[in-house]
Amino acid sequence: MGAIALSDIKKNRTTVEIYGRQYVIVGSESPTQIKLVAAMVDEKMREISANNPFLDVSKVAVLTAVNAVNDYLKLKERLERLEKELNELKEKD
Amino acid sequence: MGAIALSDIKKNRTTVEIYGRQYVIVGSESPTQIKLVAAMVDEKMREISANNPFLDVSKVAVLTAVNAVNDYLKLKERLERLEKELNELKEKD
Repeated sequence: MGAIALSDIKKNRTTVEIYGRQYVIVGSESPTQIKLVAAMVDEKMREISANNPFLDVSKVAVLTAVNAVNDYLKLKERLERLEKELNELKEKD
Repeated sequence: MGAIALSDIKKNRTTVEIYGRQYVIVGSESPTQIKLVAAMVDEKMREISANNPFLDVSKVAVLTAVNAVNDYLKLKERLERLEKELNELKEKD
């Protein structure tokens, strides 16, 4: 992880609203990408909050991060399997 | 997203500590996987907090989720390119 850091050299500043609060995201990603990411985080937070109405905002946000990192790791496993398969196919050529 | 939901049918209950607070994660993932995910979220939150000492916990957590979703989307793009390449190779066979 670490694609968006406040200290990135090549900087885009994008203001987004997530779960009713504003964030200035500074990083190398395009504003379009950042807005898409922010909308996904906002949607996931609202979903988790609806399912667990007694959680405070920071717990909702942490659980959103837990979900996102879990999805990331599963996708990474799938990518690694696919890379292996691709390399085997290329060796056959 | 949505791999970990409190309403999942096949349930593992795993207690983890993230950023000094305890969470009971209920879902289909193994406790080992959940502990790994929690450690990654905890580490990322501490990194973001160290770089931005004036952010409150919920903002740190939201930015952690933003980073994780951004990484997820980038990996998904890479996966889709790879799947396309793999299908083209298979068609050649």
